[in-house]
Amino acid sequence: MNGGRTIQTKGGVVEILDQTLLPFETTFRRIETAEQMAEAIRVMRVRGAPLIGVAGAFGVALALKSDASDANLARACELLGATRPTAVNLRRRIDELRRELTTVRPAERFTRAYARAQAISDEEATLSRRIGEHGAELIRAAHRRTGRAVNVLTHCNAGWLATVDWGTALAPIYVAHGEGVPVHVWVDETRPRNQGYLTAYELSQERVPHTVIADNTGGHLMQHGRVDLCIVGTDRTTAAGDVCNKVGTYLKALAAHDNGVPFYVAAPESSIDWSISHGREIPIEERGAEELERIRGLDASGQVLEVRLPASAFANFAFDVTPARLVTGLITERGLCPASREGLRSLFPEHAR
Amino acid sequence: MNGGRTIQTKGGVVEILDQTLLPFETTFRRIETAEQMAEAIRVMRVRGAPLIGVAGAFGVALALKSDASDANLARACELLGATRPTAVNLRRRIDELRRELTTVRPAERFTRAYARAQAISDEEATLSRRIGEHGAELIRAAHRRTGRAVNVLTHCNAGWLATVDWGTALAPIYVAHGEGVPVHVWVDETRPRNQGYLTAYELSQERVPHTVIADNTGGHLMQHGRVDLCIVGTDRTTAAGDVCNKVGTYLKALAAHDNGVPFYVAAPESSIDWSISHGREIPIEERGAEELERIRGLDASGQVLEVRLPASAFANFAFDVTPARLVTGLITERGLCPASREGLRSLFPEHAR
Repeated sequence: MNGGRTIQTKGGVVEILDQTLLPFETTFRRIETAEQMAEAIRVMRVRGAPLIGVAGAFGVALALKSDASDANLARACELLGATRPTAVNLRRRIDELRRELTTVRPAERFTRAYARAQAISDEEATLSRRIGEHGAELIRAAHRRTGRAVNVLTHCNAGWLATVDWGTALAPIYVAHGEGVPVHVWVDETRPRNQGYLTAYELSQERVPHTVIADNTGGHLMQHGRVDLCIVGTDRTTAAGDVCNKVGTYLKALAAHDNGVPFYVAAPESSIDWSISHGREIPIEERGAEELERIRGLDASGQVLEVRLPASAFANFAFDVTPARLVTGLITERGLCPASREGLRSLFPEHAR
Repeated sequence: MNGGRTIQTKGGVVEILDQTLLPFETTFRRIETAEQMAEAIRVMRVRGAPLIGVAGAFGVALALKSDASDANLARACELLGATRPTAVNLRRRIDELRRELTTVRPAERFTRAYARAQAISDEEATLSRRIGEHGAELIRAAHRRTGRAVNVLTHCNAGWLATVDWGTALAPIYVAHGEGVPVHVWVDETRPRNQGYLTAYELSQERVPHTVIADNTGGHLMQHGRVDLCIVGTDRTTAAGDVCNKVGTYLKALAAHDNGVPFYVAAPESSIDWSISHGREIPIEERGAEELERIRGLDASGQVLEVRLPASAFANFAFDVTPARLVTGLITERGLCPASREGLRSLFPEHAR
C-alpha cells in the first residue's frame, strides 16, 4: 500500500518497518542476523501471523550467510520457531524452508533460502490481495442492501502492517474503498498492545473513514444496528474452522452472533493448521505484564512518552479461540467458505483426509 | 471501609473524595455550591450510581443555603439532574428530595435537605452492607464446591468508591474475604476511563488478592474454567430485570452465558427504574473523545502525567444494556432474586402493579 511493504530487501539487506515505533514514527530497521530477527518477532517489531511467517523465513536465510551447516540451520530454525507460539504461519514457513534446505548443499543454502524467503514474501502479498478481492463482495453486497456506508468492525490489526502488503481482514475494505464503495470502520483499540492505533494509522494513510472505540463498545454498537459486518484476522485456524485470533475476538463473535451480525474471518491458507480440529489444542501465548502496565503516547509537547499504569498484578493472555459455530464464514485466497471441515475441504481438497 | 466514606460532612461542610486523582492521590475536595457538585458529578470526581445519587442530594441542599426559594430549588434540581443521564439513582434521589422540600417552608429547607442527604448517605451505606451479606453466600457456596480460592470477575468499579461505603458488586467480596473465605478477583481494566484501577486500588487497601486484565481477556478465562462467578454493578435496572451498566458488561455476560459461568448483578433498589420494562428505553450517555484519547499514568520519575493516544476519531458510549436473559440473578438489599419481573416483584411487592 502507500506505506510500502513491511519487509523489504535491498541488495541482500533485509529491512523491517519497526512497528513498536508506530504510529509515532515510521522507521525501517536493518536486520542482519537470525538473532536480530528473533528479537524483532518476539518484541513485535514485526507482528501479524502472515508477516512473522515471512520474517521467520528471512531469519533462517540470514543465519546461513556465515554458517550454512546442518547444525546452524537446525539452531536457527529452533531459535526463530520458538519466538511466538500461537500463529501457525511462523513454524510452518520455517519447517517448510528447513525441509527444502536439507536437500541442498550447504554452499548453496544461503542463496536458496534468501530467494525462497523473497518468494514467500511475494506470495503472501498476492494472497492478501486475493483475500481482498473475495471479501470485497461482502462489503459491496451490504452496500447494495442498505444503500449507505457499510460499517465494518475489526479487532486488532490485520492490515498491511500485519502482512507483507494489503492485509487480511483489511484487504476487502481496501479493495471496496478503492472501487468507491462507501465504508466506515469501527476500530477496536485492542488492549493491551493497542494495535487498533496501527489499524487507525493504516486506514488514515489509505483515507478510509474510521472511528477508534474501546474494546468494550462493539456489543453496544451491534445491539443498535451500527455494525453491518465484522471482519477479523486469524493467527491459527483449525481444520474444523475454529479460529484463534487476538484476545477479545471471541467476545465480539458472541455479540455478533447474539445480534445477527455476520462475523467473517480472513484466513489465508497459511493460517490453517490442518493437523488439529479443536481450538483447545492451540497454545495461547502469555506475554509480559509490562504490555498492560506501560502505555506509550504523546505528551503535551508532542514527544513520545511512556507512562505506567498503577496496579500490582496483571495477567496478559494474547489470544483467544472463537469456535467455528460463531463464525459466519472464512475469507480465503480461494474464495469464501463456511467455517467447518466441509467448508475448508471444498476449497482445499488437497488437504482432505 | 479503610479509606473512609467517599462523601463526608463536617460541621456543615461537604467533602468528596476526588476520584479523578485516584489511585495516584487521595484528596478530599470541599464542595460548597450546587454548581461545584454538578461539575464534580459531570467530570466524575464522584461516580458510581449510588454515590452520585447521594451527591445529587447534597448538591440540592447546598443550593438552598443562600436561596431556598421555589425557583432556586427547581433550578438546582434541573442542573444536578442533567449532569448524567443513565443512572436512575441521581434523578430519583433529586426528585424525591424536591417533592419533600416543596411541602416545607423555605426557611427550613436547607436544614431539612441537608439532614435528608445525610440520611440517604447513611441508608446507602447500610444497603451496600446488606448486599454484601446476601451476595457473600454465592462466594461461600463456590468455595464449598471447589475447595479453592473463588475467582470472581468484575467490570468497572462498583466498590466503596462507587457508593458511600462497602460497594455493591464488591461488597459480597469484602464480606466473604472478611470471613476468611479465599477469594481472588479478576479486575477488568474498563477502558476508556480505567475504573479497573480504582477497583484494584480498593482491593489493595482491603488486602483482597486480585489481577488486572485487559477488557478483552474475560472470555478466554471463562473458556478455561478460570472464572467461578461474575459480579457487576448496575446504573439502571428495568422492572423486567434488564441491566444497564458500564459499557462492556454485555460482552462479559454473553461469555458467562456461553460458558455456564453464573453472572450476578448487585442491584440496590435505588438502581431499579420501575417505570420501564426494556433496556432500550434507558438513555445511554455518550461522553467526550478525550476520555479515550488521554491516559494518565506515572512517568519514569513517579510523577503523574497524561499522554495522548494517536487517533483522529473516537466514539465513547459509556454504558450498555445486558438483557435479563443473560443475568443469573440480582443481588439486592432484600436478598437474591431472578432477573425478571416476577423475581423483582417477589422481593419488592410494593412495586407490583
